[in-house]
Amino acid sequence: MQQLYYGVAYYDEYMPYERLQEDIRMMKAAGINVVRIAESTWSTHEPQNGIFDFTSVDRVLDAMHEAGIHVIVGTPTYAVPTWMVKEHPDVLAETPNGPGRYGARQIMDIANPTYLFYSERIIRKLIGRVCKHPAVIGYQVDNETKHYGTSGPNVQHRFIKYMKEKFGTVERLNKEFGLDYWSNRINGWEDFPSVAGTINGSLGAEFSRFQRQLVTEFLAWQVSIVNEYKQPDQFVTHNFDFDWRGHSFGVQKDVDHYEAAKALDIAGVDIYHPSQDELTGKEISFGGDSTRSLKGNNYFVIETQAQAFPNWTPYPGQLRLQAFSHLASGANMVAYWHWHSIHNSIETYWKGLLSHDLKSNPTYEEAVTIGRDFKQLSANLINLKKENRTAILVSNEALTSIEWFKLPGGEVRYNEMVRLLYDRLYEMNIGCDFLYPSAYDRFENYDLIVVPALYAASDELLEKLNRYVESGGHVVYTFKSGFANEHIKVRTGIQPGIIEKACGIQYSQFVEPNKVSLKGNPFGVDEESNQVKVWMELLTPTKAEVLAWYDHPHWGTYAAITENKYGRGTATYIGYVPSSEVAGKVLERACKAAGIYGPDQALRFPLIVKSGVNEAGRTIRYYFNYSNQPESFSYPHGNGIELLSARNIASGEQIALDRWGLVIIEESEASMK
Amino acid sequence: MQQLYYGVAYYDEYMPYERLQEDIRMMKAAGINVVRIAESTWSTHEPQNGIFDFTSVDRVLDAMHEAGIHVIVGTPTYAVPTWMVKEHPDVLAETPNGPGRYGARQIMDIANPTYLFYSERIIRKLIGRVCKHPAVIGYQVDNETKHYGTSGPNVQHRFIKYMKEKFGTVERLNKEFGLDYWSNRINGWEDFPSVAGTINGSLGAEFSRFQRQLVTEFLAWQVSIVNEYKQPDQFVTHNFDFDWRGHSFGVQKDVDHYEAAKALDIAGVDIYHPSQDELTGKEISFGGDSTRSLKGNNYFVIETQAQAFPNWTPYPGQLRLQAFSHLASGANMVAYWHWHSIHNSIETYWKGLLSHDLKSNPTYEEAVTIGRDFKQLSANLINLKKENRTAILVSNEALTSIEWFKLPGGEVRYNEMVRLLYDRLYEMNIGCDFLYPSAYDRFENYDLIVVPALYAASDELLEKLNRYVESGGHVVYTFKSGFANEHIKVRTGIQPGIIEKACGIQYSQFVEPNKVSLKGNPFGVDEESNQVKVWMELLTPTKAEVLAWYDHPHWGTYAAITENKYGRGTATYIGYVPSSEVAGKVLERACKAAGIYGPDQALRFPLIVKSGVNEAGRTIRYYFNYSNQPESFSYPHGNGIELLSARNIASGEQIALDRWGLVIIEESEASMK
Amino acid sequence: MQQLYYGVAYYDEYMPYERLQEDIRMMKAAGINVVRIAESTWSTHEPQNGIFDFTSVDRVLDAMHEAGIHVIVGTPTYAVPTWMVKEHPDVLAETPNGPGRYGARQIMDIANPTYLFYSERIIRKLIGRVCKHPAVIGYQVDNETKHYGTSGPNVQHRFIKYMKEKFGTVERLNKEFGLDYWSNRINGWEDFPSVAGTINGSLGAEFSRFQRQLVTEFLAWQVSIVNEYKQPDQFVTHNFDFDWRGHSFGVQKDVDHYEAAKALDIAGVDIYHPSQDELTGKEISFGGDSTRSLKGNNYFVIETQAQAFPNWTPYPGQLRLQAFSHLASGANMVAYWHWHSIHNSIETYWKGLLSHDLKSNPTYEEAVTIGRDFKQLSANLINLKKENRTAILVSNEALTSIEWFKLPGGEVRYNEMVRLLYDRLYEMNIGCDFLYPSAYDRFENYDLIVVPALYAASDELLEKLNRYVESGGHVVYTFKSGFANEHIKVRTGIQPGIIEKACGIQYSQFVEPNKVSLKGNPFGVDEESNQVKVWMELLTPTKAEVLAWYDHPHWGTYAAITENKYGRGTATYIGYVPSSEVAGKVLERACKAAGIYGPDQALRFPLIVKSGVNEAGRTIRYYFNYSNQPESFSYPHGNGIELLSARNIASGEQIALDRWGLVIIEESEASMK
Repeated sequence: MQQLYYGVAYYDEYMPYERLQEDIRMMKAAGINVVRIAESTWSTHEPQNGIFDFTSVDRVLDAMHEAGIHVIVGTPTYAVPTWMVKEHPDVLAETPNGPGRYGARQIMDIANPTYLFYSERIIRKLIGRVCKHPAVIGYQVDNETKHYGTSGPNVQHRFIKYMKEKFGTVERLNKEFGLDYWSNRINGWEDFPSVAGTINGSLGAEFSRFQRQLVTEFLAWQVSIVNEYKQPDQFVTHNFDFDWRGHSFGVQKDVDHYEAAKALDIAGVDIYHPSQDELTGKEISFGGDSTRSLKGNNYFVIETQAQAFPNWTPYPGQLRLQAFSHLASGANMVAYWHWHSIHNSIETYWKGLLSHDLKSNPTYEEAVTIGRDFKQLSANLINLKKENRTAILVSNEALTSIEWFKLPGGEVRYNEMVRLLYDRLYEMNIGCDFLYPSAYDRFENYDLIVVPALYAASDELLEKLNRYVESGGHVVYTFKSGFANEHIKVRTGIQPGIIEKACGIQYSQFVEPNKVSLKGNPFGVDEESNQVKVWMELLTPTKAEVLAWYDHPHWGTYAAITENKYGRGTATYIGYVPSSEVAGKVLERACKAAGIYGPDQALRFPLIVKSGVNEAGRTIRYYFNYSNQPESFSYPHGNGIELLSARNIASGEQIALDRWGLVIIEESEASMK
Repeated sequence: MQQLYYGVAYYDEYMPYERLQEDIRMMKAAGINVVRIAESTWSTHEPQNGIFDFTSVDRVLDAMHEAGIHVIVGTPTYAVPTWMVKEHPDVLAETPNGPGRYGARQIMDIANPTYLFYSERIIRKLIGRVCKHPAVIGYQVDNETKHYGTSGPNVQHRFIKYMKEKFGTVERLNKEFGLDYWSNRINGWEDFPSVAGTINGSLGAEFSRFQRQLVTEFLAWQVSIVNEYKQPDQFVTHNFDFDWRGHSFGVQKDVDHYEAAKALDIAGVDIYHPSQDELTGKEISFGGDSTRSLKGNNYFVIETQAQAFPNWTPYPGQLRLQAFSHLASGANMVAYWHWHSIHNSIETYWKGLLSHDLKSNPTYEEAVTIGRDFKQLSANLINLKKENRTAILVSNEALTSIEWFKLPGGEVRYNEMVRLLYDRLYEMNIGCDFLYPSAYDRFENYDLIVVPALYAASDELLEKLNRYVESGGHVVYTFKSGFANEHIKVRTGIQPGIIEKACGIQYSQFVEPNKVSLKGNPFGVDEESNQVKVWMELLTPTKAEVLAWYDHPHWGTYAAITENKYGRGTATYIGYVPSSEVAGKVLERACKAAGIYGPDQALRFPLIVKSGVNEAGRTIRYYFNYSNQPESFSYPHGNGIELLSARNIASGEQIALDRWGLVIIEESEASMK
Repeated sequence: MQQLYYGVAYYDEYMPYERLQEDIRMMKAAGINVVRIAESTWSTHEPQNGIFDFTSVDRVLDAMHEAGIHVIVGTPTYAVPTWMVKEHPDVLAETPNGPGRYGARQIMDIANPTYLFYSERIIRKLIGRVCKHPAVIGYQVDNETKHYGTSGPNVQHRFIKYMKEKFGTVERLNKEFGLDYWSNRINGWEDFPSVAGTINGSLGAEFSRFQRQLVTEFLAWQVSIVNEYKQPDQFVTHNFDFDWRGHSFGVQKDVDHYEAAKALDIAGVDIYHPSQDELTGKEISFGGDSTRSLKGNNYFVIETQAQAFPNWTPYPGQLRLQAFSHLASGANMVAYWHWHSIHNSIETYWKGLLSHDLKSNPTYEEAVTIGRDFKQLSANLINLKKENRTAILVSNEALTSIEWFKLPGGEVRYNEMVRLLYDRLYEMNIGCDFLYPSAYDRFENYDLIVVPALYAASDELLEKLNRYVESGGHVVYTFKSGFANEHIKVRTGIQPGIIEKACGIQYSQFVEPNKVSLKGNPFGVDEESNQVKVWMELLTPTKAEVLAWYDHPHWGTYAAITENKYGRGTATYIGYVPSSEVAGKVLERACKAAGIYGPDQALRFPLIVKSGVNEAGRTIRYYFNYSNQPESFSYPHGNGIELLSARNIASGEQIALDRWGLVIIEESEASMK
């Protein structure tokens, strides 16, 4: 990558009147150096079956090139044209809610050959046309691809073949999935029912895994087509998105990001987050760490918010804070969705850099300063390398399994646990990578692995974790980890199954707590935070040291949190849903044990520090103030330069940060590495 | 109209045993002089396809005539018989939820020719039979007609023709509705998809407008048939109903009352309202003002509650208060739904004047006093003429558009804003008419026009409002007004678009408020009422005077409420969702500016005064006490007579009102008019 | 019955590995002497159409017999195999939500002949095979049978025949059901519409009654087949279940238990209840009294919880308390669902006696003590006879009618009223039976009949109750009783209809209370408990004494609770939804009037006493402490033996009870009876 990219999604097709030159003028003024086009507008580019019209693509490419703005071209396949649905209604995904209904995007059956035929044709037409245009630096295949719940007869049929391949015999399947229960046995493959109504979580989760595999295959198939046209120096990316809770929140249940990213050159991502008084940087950090970990490399933020919703319109300073926070996690591109606010349809109130009046506004004016600084500091900030010693292990399988077997109340779900732990590391300024179950060769890179609620996991994975501890690693597990195998079959031995060995505890009973707290408040937290909520396992230590006991008339003889030395490492086990405060204390203890608790941990959220090494081999440290009040801190590292102000900084110097402010310090001496 | 009508809906067909003479005896005792019949009982009158049985109609007409009670005959088309649905299941409306299911009323496709064929036949049979009967004074076509969400293939097909007619080319349609977005373009009319799943608000709202037009056409078609039979002195009416929130609440989204009323001789309405401690008279006033404004004339309250639900059973005095409140708004008829409580089916607990025992009861006994007074005072109270100087402009289009583009939280909808403003005028005793967008010639009748959230409006309408202000009118706008055109395309210029000229303000950003209030509490209200909730536009005055600024660390430089002199008038703009208290203060200020703040404004809710001029040219003033405590007031107008007690009243006299009490004062000197 | 049964549901088919001998070893250690098998595993026993495999049945029967454990064999018809649904999708019930979808149990159309054909075949194969096996003591037909909402075309068609049979002519039907309303008349049987969408409660409730009749017929049909194979000394039972509110709660709306039980030899039941701090014994008592009353005899608890859910895992002592509570209500069997926790599918977290590790655990260890005591005390405790003088009259028709005509708010439903009254009797230690409307000959067995909300009732039933009072009985009615006839047609005379005669009150109006309480707090309860909520009838006493008046500015002249002497008995009428406290006071007064208030009433919940006479003619008294604190009481009855400790007890002795503890005292002198 030669420069930091500052970009927008640009839709010439949506413009209410001729705007191209005026838009480019305003983009240039804001330092925008890349636009993404074409990913939503199939019906414009192929107005009728086999009739193509790339006018808007051509003119935008030419005009951008003339202006020196790069272009990423998206394949337009995630929203299908009216003519296709009228000709072939079955291109829409049938889901457990019934057949599809035209209107929204992302409603088609990505396994439907008619859809695939038309998709391939438009991709070849479009990419073939643009691939040699000098403005084009790369491609995005499809957009925020998921499986859209596709589960019609053709998908069910393929699923049977998948199951045959996987299990060989119905007998093996019946046994592993426990299908005798409630007479669910499948005694001949031809009896295999639609799983749309299944009550067997093993079967349901396997179908979800199959659906995720459809996504992986679909994206790889698109990439393989685009690769036929891709020129040297061009890249293929995709914008992954996250489990959505009104904003980007956690692991995406419908896509295996790790597998799907293998086909890509560069991982890309959409990151949307709360703003105004709710802006914390957590989602920026989470999304960045997660995406950087897919390919172990720098990544693109292909979409993030400019003005967006009424409750997200940024306060002065926030747009800058956000942009540099992305860089601090290793992004090489920050691009807004989108350039201009749209005048019709469902995303009218998802505002872009420009308001509906298409004029300057305070948010745009702040972008101008970001573009200027990106350009100025590109060489210092690009290709930031991060070497974190902590990782969090996340798993689609565990997520799906906890959807099937919900915790009492249903409010604490898998991603709540992921975020409960991740957010504590973020607040402590512990840099963090993500680990995926199949990334076996990476485990040893870390001193500490944090494992939230790993409910469904293979023997192999758990044994790998045991060996990791034995050979000196540190693991923090929560409740439910190890409980079931990869087919969500509960393990038939004493719990927590295979990891009992490393954890040195046992349990066979678990209850929903009612007026339970930790005995003697061992972590010295407030009363509310000391309480035990939602779920508690009645742990009996066999070898482990008990960090906390339950306080309850009947369950007081059981442990809540334990720590066990195993081989040269330690395994911590949290048997209940801890409060943020207790989770933080347990993680702090584990970080210290793992020897990764250093001077950056003197700062705590809302003061956030992120670091890495730049191309010149110098350490870059970003300091962010995620609050409405000015803050200051004592800079503990070697002398350097504050890049935004070009001011020298001495070690130990007290540095002030505006509300929602930031500084970037490049250490003068190159890093050892 | 020769007399005040006091009426009931009467269903001889539902009676558990022979009751006709006994019912008539009790009606006479209660002064009931009109009954409405036949509108719900198609299956009784046509028990089999083409077999007619009007026995119950005939006998009721004869008996009523003998008793001197008038009859309104309803066409029975709003509930279809079992045989029809069995023969032609497609007479039931297909909606986005699927095909229809027999059971309830108002479930048919009003565009279905089979249904229309049978409807026409029963109408001709019934109306042809009764039209010369001396008991019959008029007709009600259908009942509370709406479009019932009909949107099956035939309706979609007609909609395409409507769109062709309206837009001419797909290109124009694509542009105006922004259909490039998410590949929604329609590049050939034959590609036009069902809009049941559309995510394009312009398209969705246009379909709603088309559905409302179906209602207008359907009612006009029924009226045209009935008119073939109608005798001189007979009338045709219809009972419109309102947006329902457990009771009549606001503008009906599924019917354009103003257009639909054009075919009628007299506008009729259903008004249902909270009761007991919740009785305020607001819905009576709202419904009356709204319906009176349809044809600019007196109207019928065709249905209102007698006992109704357990939480509506009136306290002693309330039934009287309600009845005279209707008259005070210009009603010439007050009729209850219904005479007797039903012994089976879904409205068993929607009680009539009689309880299930069909005997006298406290509510019935109070009706007896109303009937007596109506008869006694008919000549004084009938045909009350009202000349209000204030109007509120309401719009189906604005309502629909705000359903598509909801305010944050979704709780403040269009009708909440209508009522927020209307109810404040009511509490101030400011008489009010309603204006509809197409009633252009009426604008100039008013000194003040109140415009809630006019989100979707044509250039023409907004320019009309600008001219209205310029030539001396006063307008109070709320937020969102002027934002989009009549196709819900957001205006591409600076906001608030065309009305910027009259309002003297601009904005390009809007946010969801969080801990925001009005700076310095400019209206001197309580702290809670001074807060800014739900929605706030960041207004910058260009010429306007600022009545209130936001108080917030970041948004404090923007205005919340402004007032602008433009030409000879003023335009007030409220940029956020004000509390009732602030809304009241702003409206009070506007009323004063418009010169319509007089002696009646010395009284405030729960003391309500309503006035008009009777046929003798004398001013009638109703004073109502909408509270559980006795109240009194000083009477400020000319000497007169209290009609209920036939007592002389002197100007300045202190007048006492019982809890839920009323007096009616006829001024002795005829009005100038 | 020769011995107390202590049992489990056992599924060899679900076991993750070979366990049979180990399971039997652990069962024997726990005193388990009966297992129920086969009721859920059709697909195991008939893996393909017509191919049978009873291996698991045979081997379990043989092994159990060898171990001396009895077996109940269930017909496996409540969960259908995949092959059947693939061949005949229409075996799944079509409901108002659409066609069935494979997955869960209890989803078939119990009126479908294909299903019935296959059911009969598997029943004959299975029962024919096992009936002479010495381990088999009886059979359970199907499992928790209900009608599953079946309402497809075939069921609608049969319903028309049922209606023809019942009403003869459409005219009679139209009149009785009030079908003129909203044009719902059926003027020819061939016009009869599907009732899936009906808004007529009479029609809807009649369809529900028809559906319940399908259940009665289905169970009787299964019993008739099984009876062909049943050997002397074998029995046929069924496990009824209750209205489910997260646990067993009240009258089952979808089954007429009383009618359905007629075909059985012994009534069986599932009882699931809250546990831990929420354990009260109420559901155990309610379910037991209800089931014992079906056939007026001892019954089986075929399913109750062992560990079950995380919030039900019993505290130490609770499993024992529960087991003996069942016996105290007259159960001869206490069986757990189920032996072992399952490792896959939807009930993975509905844990059995064994946890997923299939080892011993604290709950299992407590079961060991129960099995020991059951065996030890079997002769003393079996076949307990109870002669209660109080009964509560419950009715499927009343329940359904109140589902159609809900009380304001919808939260107080029929079963809430049943439990409001039942629970108060339980807390007072008043033994109670259940009465069903058609059990006419049993009314005279009681001194007090409690009648909650008997909204729908025939003239015959109400006259029967009047005569019951007249001849010396005592009745406590609540509001709504007598209001409508058995077709939910509201009575056309003064309310409360026929029972007015016994109650000496009248009303024609009812309201939803708002700030209403009882005047002068006549029962001396706390302020909250003195309030009037949800529903109030405006009662006017004609002859009754008023126990409580409403306190309200407008409704203060009406009575809330009345008592009337009629003939030699009294009828109490509660006109509103009383608090628990007031309900308790009113029932206490009625019990005293009926002469059934004795020494056991000196104890109150959480001290519960239950009694009966054993086979030796001696009175057995169980004393239970349903609380977390130790309690004690003075024993007022004759000298006896505490059976668990074999300790002599003297009359008047103070007896201590552990938290969740119990004692069982057998009076030494045989009862007079």
